[in-house]
Amino acid sequence: MKIDTLIVHADLFTMQGKGVGYIDNGAVAIDAGKIVAVGPTDQLQKEYTAEERIDATNKMVLPGFVDAHLHSYWGILRGVAQDTSMWMHKGVGPFRRYLTDENRLAGSKMNILEGLAAGTTTFCDYSTPILDIAQFYKQLGARARLTCFIKEVPDVLDTLQEDDLYPFEPAIGEKTLHENLELVDRWHGYDDNRITATLGPQGPDFLSVDLMKKVKNIANEKQLKIHMHVAQAARETKQMVGRYNKRSIAFLDEIGYLDDSLIAVHLTDATKEEVELLVEREASMVVCSGAIGIIRGEVPPACSFLEAGGNVGLGSDQSTGNNCNQMINEMKLTALFNKIKYKNPEVLPAWKVLRMATVEGAKAVGLGDEIGSLEVGKKADIVFVDLTAKTMQPVIKSPMRNHVPNLVYSARGHEVCRVLVNGQTLYENGKYLTVNEEDIVDQCQRFATETTEKVTKEHFRITNAYEFMKQGQL
Amino acid sequence: MKIDTLIVHADLFTMQGKGVGYIDNGAVAIDAGKIVAVGPTDQLQKEYTAEERIDATNKMVLPGFVDAHLHSYWGILRGVAQDTSMWMHKGVGPFRRYLTDENRLAGSKMNILEGLAAGTTTFCDYSTPILDIAQFYKQLGARARLTCFIKEVPDVLDTLQEDDLYPFEPAIGEKTLHENLELVDRWHGYDDNRITATLGPQGPDFLSVDLMKKVKNIANEKQLKIHMHVAQAARETKQMVGRYNKRSIAFLDEIGYLDDSLIAVHLTDATKEEVELLVEREASMVVCSGAIGIIRGEVPPACSFLEAGGNVGLGSDQSTGNNCNQMINEMKLTALFNKIKYKNPEVLPAWKVLRMATVEGAKAVGLGDEIGSLEVGKKADIVFVDLTAKTMQPVIKSPMRNHVPNLVYSARGHEVCRVLVNGQTLYENGKYLTVNEEDIVDQCQRFATETTEKVTKEHFRITNAYEFMKQGQL
Repeated sequence: MKIDTLIVHADLFTMQGKGVGYIDNGAVAIDAGKIVAVGPTDQLQKEYTAEERIDATNKMVLPGFVDAHLHSYWGILRGVAQDTSMWMHKGVGPFRRYLTDENRLAGSKMNILEGLAAGTTTFCDYSTPILDIAQFYKQLGARARLTCFIKEVPDVLDTLQEDDLYPFEPAIGEKTLHENLELVDRWHGYDDNRITATLGPQGPDFLSVDLMKKVKNIANEKQLKIHMHVAQAARETKQMVGRYNKRSIAFLDEIGYLDDSLIAVHLTDATKEEVELLVEREASMVVCSGAIGIIRGEVPPACSFLEAGGNVGLGSDQSTGNNCNQMINEMKLTALFNKIKYKNPEVLPAWKVLRMATVEGAKAVGLGDEIGSLEVGKKADIVFVDLTAKTMQPVIKSPMRNHVPNLVYSARGHEVCRVLVNGQTLYENGKYLTVNEEDIVDQCQRFATETTEKVTKEHFRITNAYEFMKQGQL
Repeated sequence: MKIDTLIVHADLFTMQGKGVGYIDNGAVAIDAGKIVAVGPTDQLQKEYTAEERIDATNKMVLPGFVDAHLHSYWGILRGVAQDTSMWMHKGVGPFRRYLTDENRLAGSKMNILEGLAAGTTTFCDYSTPILDIAQFYKQLGARARLTCFIKEVPDVLDTLQEDDLYPFEPAIGEKTLHENLELVDRWHGYDDNRITATLGPQGPDFLSVDLMKKVKNIANEKQLKIHMHVAQAARETKQMVGRYNKRSIAFLDEIGYLDDSLIAVHLTDATKEEVELLVEREASMVVCSGAIGIIRGEVPPACSFLEAGGNVGLGSDQSTGNNCNQMINEMKLTALFNKIKYKNPEVLPAWKVLRMATVEGAKAVGLGDEIGSLEVGKKADIVFVDLTAKTMQPVIKSPMRNHVPNLVYSARGHEVCRVLVNGQTLYENGKYLTVNEEDIVDQCQRFATETTEKVTKEHFRITNAYEFMKQGQL
């Protein structure tokens, strides 16, 4: 049979079944962007004649990673809000009001390139200006599941006291809902579902109950997922109890949000019982270990969610906090933070977090039928890892394989040497094939300088980090 | 004045003073392997004429990192002992007896290359076969502070029950002490102190009190540091209490070990009072966050040690456990694990862990007068970081600098683009200038395969990891 592409001689990790689905000297046959066969090289070589044959000798080949939650635009201010408490208020707060759509877009592009080069093929990007960012994903060729903020709170968090309830401005709510609906109309289902959209109420504390209900009705009517921050911190719980005398999840239950359309991000402040309720209602979870660890010193209840039988994906969140937009970092931190949380080295072994970054993450964001494993009928989103990189060396196959522990614990990202989405190579050996990397880096640098120069007069609001600099520590 | 090398136009972080010692558009003048001036480029360009001029535009330039504790030879078995409890017994235990000097050396070479490429210039390498490894450091040109295991326990840990006291064999003690003394005689002070030696009693539980005392007498007589695992786990405490009815630090106090010659590694199971006693006696600490986090799910008391006023260095430990032999990883994990331990994002900010990886780490291992900062009279061990790498972008200088947070939290290692030791470039843009990388990787791969094939009959001893593989999870 004639096909587009045949990958041969791979150390193949299909992620099929309950483990990593290893096939020694494996092959993947791809036609029209989809996987048409997976199996031993000998067998597939007999059955298929390919336009392009990719020799994957000394390569680990696996499904592309799913970044289940990121705010790519924060790339524009990487590293300005570290080591500070009240991160949203005092860390990024002073900078937020100076961001423009133009410089946010520049930050997004850079972060997306960073993720792609480290093997992310699906970006669940929750960003502004989302319509422009969608154009970039169109050009880049990566898979995107896009969301924008529906909220009624103006950019004033840095001026509030810790106990103040956030002000709501309904006009902001209308405007942001409109933008999200425009995103859905223009992009949901684009390019045979390569780009899809979800609805993004920012969190139960960021919009009024009326708008929350309106969003849920639209989600039901249009069969859309709701991608939302839930119980993200004690800060949110304080807002919810102050406003409604209810914790986030009880509130969401009451207004009908707890069902399989909910992708609940963070859950840092959720109790075990709340987590179990979410799983019972078939909501899914995204854990952003790096971000929550650095911003709050906390480890969200991903293990409880998994134990209760739920699906958990991994998200890199934002680079003005977490700093890294890539899933190899998230896999490692998720495994290590939970080992520490439970003082148990057996918690979340490498193969489990690899499943969270691939097949289970895909299910968690509602794309389980299309991506997440290398299996017949799924889209050919595929990552190659160079096993001759020193961080992946030596490669051991007996008495057990070390590929997966080394990918999760030792690899740093640069070992990824080829990335395919829909069977098309987007990145190979350090080069991006569909966009101009240099322009993107230059633009990001220029806009960041412009933005932060404007912030100069706000020094008094920037806490730790600015103090550190004045004392010669940054 | 004529000199060998002038580095100009750097974003220079000298690590002088109490912070990071930033100099905008900075320069470093180097002659005969030492730093002869540090200051603004304009000024140094007037004062010096150099044989070699290195333009560091768009580069962050800082002192080389000190890996204060590593067992490089475990590189030969990277990734075989993950996600398992009783790591020493059940994780590496079954493999340990099959290691030969030849394959340990191959593992060491690969791990050392990995560290150098990510900016480690000083390797406090606690390894076997140390005399051969010293030859490799001689050839490579890196700075090395070498130690080998003085111990009386044979390689039988994997056959013991958890409560069994380790057997001591005095003949092993004599042999290993002899090797350490040979190391001192042949290498201590080599090449104007580029290679030095310390004494390495493995830990208070691994040799008899008589041999411990003998080692301490030699240390006093020859003015050598003692590089030792101390209170490394509850396992050690159990041995000490079982044998002597004393905890490790009380025991060490009694036999005169607690003074400024002691470099105490781990201290995982040390109490706050024990930590304070060590600081009072001017011992120093090395924390191996990655290794202890992954092997035990614990966070050693580095913050307590720092608070009590002690010096703490960072160590990468071994790659059959921690997996990564590089300090950018260690800086990040040390900061994040301690934020989580104390549920406080302000704990161990980026600049503090950068000091631990450079100037304070140098002091902790007794090399504070020679390395650790860029300052006149110190050795020219210098690292260049490419600021155009996406992980370091954008570069922000106002209202505060983001170089240090991005180096610690975002960089992955591949941003290091040049490494100098004693003013000599050893690594530049992915190439090693003094050794053949390809041979080293090939050799390591070959020996790893040979070794693990021999271990095949020991499957029954390998716990989690082998179970995982049988179930298709690895």
